[in-house]
Amino acid sequence: MQQERPFDLLNKVLGQKVFVRLKNNFNIRGRITSFDAHMNIVLEDAEELDNGELKVKLGTILLRGGNIIFVSPA
Amino acid sequence: MQQERPFDLLNKVLGQKVFVRLKNNFNIRGRITSFDAHMNIVLEDAEELDNGELKVKLGTILLRGGNIIFVSPA
Amino acid sequence: MQQERPFDLLNKVLGQKVFVRLKNNFNIRGRITSFDAHMNIVLEDAEELDNGELKVKLGTILLRGGNIIFVSPA
Amino acid sequence: MQQERPFDLLNKVLGQKVFVRLKNNFNIRGRITSFDAHMNIVLEDAEELDNGELKVKLGTILLRGGNIIFVSPA
Amino acid sequence: MQQERPFDLLNKVLGQKVFVRLKNNFNIRGRITSFDAHMNIVLEDAEELDNGELKVKLGTILLRGGNIIFVSPA
Amino acid sequence: MQQERPFDLLNKVLGQKVFVRLKNNFNIRGRITSFDAHMNIVLEDAEELDNGELKVKLGTILLRGGNIIFVSPA
Amino acid sequence: MQQERPFDLLNKVLGQKVFVRLKNNFNIRGRITSFDAHMNIVLEDAEELDNGELKVKLGTILLRGGNIIFVSPA
Repeated sequence: MQQERPFDLLNKVLGQKVFVRLKNNFNIRGRITSFDAHMNIVLEDAEELDNGELKVKLGTILLRGGNIIFVSPA
Repeated sequence: MQQERPFDLLNKVLGQKVFVRLKNNFNIRGRITSFDAHMNIVLEDAEELDNGELKVKLGTILLRGGNIIFVSPA
Repeated sequence: MQQERPFDLLNKVLGQKVFVRLKNNFNIRGRITSFDAHMNIVLEDAEELDNGELKVKLGTILLRGGNIIFVSPA
Repeated sequence: MQQERPFDLLNKVLGQKVFVRLKNNFNIRGRITSFDAHMNIVLEDAEELDNGELKVKLGTILLRGGNIIFVSPA
Repeated sequence: MQQERPFDLLNKVLGQKVFVRLKNNFNIRGRITSFDAHMNIVLEDAEELDNGELKVKLGTILLRGGNIIFVSPA
Repeated sequence: MQQERPFDLLNKVLGQKVFVRLKNNFNIRGRITSFDAHMNIVLEDAEELDNGELKVKLGTILLRGGNIIFVSPA
Repeated sequence: MQQERPFDLLNKVLGQKVFVRLKNNFNIRGRITSFDAHMNIVLEDAEELDNGELKVKLGTILLRGGNIIFVSPA
């Protein structure tokens, strides 16, 4: 059996809501529609969160992977 | 069907207005006319924003990708 | 006898609980299910800790390796 | 028709005045005479600016690309 | 005679106690059992130190090389 | 005619005095005797400056390119 | 005549005392016994300095190149 790799998690949740924690206490939730090997990610219906509550609607965004701390199925 | 990649989003919005959030709370809006694999981006009619309001007109700028947090169709 | 390499430690603890210390005093505990050469790690049943106590349940997360200070079997 | 690339902007303005915003609120204006793929740039008659006003004359400088936020025709 | 390389020092002290100073005033002592070319290091019986005194026992840890300032035989 | 490249500036001033601005407001002046593609530079008779005045004589130094903001003929 | 390269300075001072300034105002003096292309350096009889005075004896250390600002023959 082949071992799983970390990015398989992103593949499994394509089209679903994810939560992304970025550096500097910046939190975003949205539907992941693509990603690449640098963890650059496109989110649709993205929302910036403040203490788990909606702060700003961002629409579709291309997030640079370099600022990400973790990604989690929402 | 081939899977989409994050940079496809930039391709789709070429010639259109985008919003770019940079590190250190620096926000820019402008018309994207080119980009490369490092997310270096040329914006025309670029404007620095302060709380969503025009702060300074920057004209045409070449933005280094390394400082970008996200890019979004405006 | 072949010399051991640092990532062998992660291989040995696959499926087990690990503690991860990240930059900016951010501590996480969870069951490691995969990792890659950049130390990107998937944790299941992940929990953010505050002084060793549960602060927030994070579920399954993909942690970027670049923010990790150390990983330790829990 | 071939698509434009971001560095084409620098090629077009060779020999002309550009404004460069660097990290840490450091702003420079000068005539760009060369650049490379890392965005290292040589400026002649370079001036450090403070709120758009001349602060210090720097003469000819070789700027490291890694500190640049954006470059703009002046 | 072949010239020595910096990592030879780690090879010589494999299995012995080392002191590791990390960024942000974080100091660790432990027995080094493996390392790689990125200076990723596994320490057994690792202890976090505060002014040279034991602060917390960490057990076995995989330290990312990128945060290390120096490693020294203890 | 071949286009000039940024490092040509360093070649032209080999053996002459240059001013180097580093990150964290650290300024050095000295005679450049060698450099490489990472902008690592050897300066002889190097002096640390404070507001343009001599602060400390450093003698011969090997400066890492990664900390440099700009280099300028003095 | 072949042009000199910055690392030649380290080759010339192998076995001699050098002063190393690191980021975050951390200064070290010691006898350099090896180095590599990343400027990783082994120092013997290393001492941490405070305002030029001995603060702590460190013995033999392997310094990561990434934190170095400059190296100078002592």
